[in-house]
Amino acid sequence: MERLVLHEYARSGNCYKIRLTAAHAGATLERREYDIMQGETRTPEFLERINANGRIPVLQVGDRFLPESNAACWYLAGGTPLVPEDRFEQADALRWMFWEQYGHEPNVATLRFWFGWIGEANLTAFQHAALPLKREAGLAALRLMDEHLARADYLVGGRFTVADIVLYAYTHCCEEGGYRLADYPAVRRWLDRVAAQPRHVTLD
Amino acid sequence: MERLVLHEYARSGNCYKIRLTAAHAGATLERREYDIMQGETRTPEFLERINANGRIPVLQVGDRFLPESNAACWYLAGGTPLVPEDRFEQADALRWMFWEQYGHEPNVATLRFWFGWIGEANLTAFQHAALPLKREAGLAALRLMDEHLARADYLVGGRFTVADIVLYAYTHCCEEGGYRLADYPAVRRWLDRVAAQPRHVTLD
Repeated sequence: MERLVLHEYARSGNCYKIRLTAAHAGATLERREYDIMQGETRTPEFLERINANGRIPVLQVGDRFLPESNAACWYLAGGTPLVPEDRFEQADALRWMFWEQYGHEPNVATLRFWFGWIGEANLTAFQHAALPLKREAGLAALRLMDEHLARADYLVGGRFTVADIVLYAYTHCCEEGGYRLADYPAVRRWLDRVAAQPRHVTLD
Repeated sequence: MERLVLHEYARSGNCYKIRLTAAHAGATLERREYDIMQGETRTPEFLERINANGRIPVLQVGDRFLPESNAACWYLAGGTPLVPEDRFEQADALRWMFWEQYGHEPNVATLRFWFGWIGEANLTAFQHAALPLKREAGLAALRLMDEHLARADYLVGGRFTVADIVLYAYTHCCEEGGYRLADYPAVRRWLDRVAAQPRHVTLD
């Protein structure tokens, strides 16, 4: 087994989802912390060696570097029951993971970051203008999950998969972004099911 | 082989990438067109049966529906040389595909849509405010690709994969969004390599 190093900012949900996948897959990660608020992922050394895109998380596998949180989860989940064997279900897990990065994270995670890190009073004029649009898009994302999970215990194939891990990361802490989990009862029950899995680890 | 139906808006790059993957994989798609400018993907029937998220493309496989363009590409590419067999390279292909949906499409594709469909004079005040940010993020995305492709003929593993197809879709028509391909010589050479592949099909 090659050495695995997670280059991360621990409080990021995108980093947490990789630790959660590793826990379920039984993989051991070394962890290297970067302070994103101090620009530690934009240094010339980071851009040259770790990720030219200047972002964490990056999963280091031996001497190779894998950016993009959901790609790292897919790598760690490979060969375990976290990835469905059926070809359609495998693509369906990826469907939820692509949607997470396009329709969920840019809204639900961004509001958590704006409220919890930057502070509403410190938002730029553009961020203030974007706030209602992002809030509405986040509400739509949570509603979509709630409708789906009202008819299924897990996102794909009736079983716990890497797609559940990926969506759990920012959904379980969405109230830090001003969303109310009480409005999404099926999501709440699903969060409980995910957190009750053996090997579950928490964000903190 | 189950019947494959692409629910699409043909001029969308997200739909084109599925047709291009199907062409390379030797899969035959039936095609069903929706006019997104007339709200045909927001009807109760569409939301109930095709995609609760109200968006195209959706790949129908028999009587199952797969939203998210890159998940559909992954499904069609499965079992062909378009998906790397090596576990790290497979995750690395997905890394580029997640990045495409997070860092490339929301900028490069959105400006093509704003300029080519909505028209700059018809943008909302918020879209006008977002324009310079999206333009800059799109420039950064094209620069990242150019730096990578200056050192490699294809995005992953030195071979043509589904990741190249996915990034080709909106990169090859980025000038419709105001970007200049002349600024990215390595990207231009890669576009030529992709378009020279046997079985290539064009957007129109």
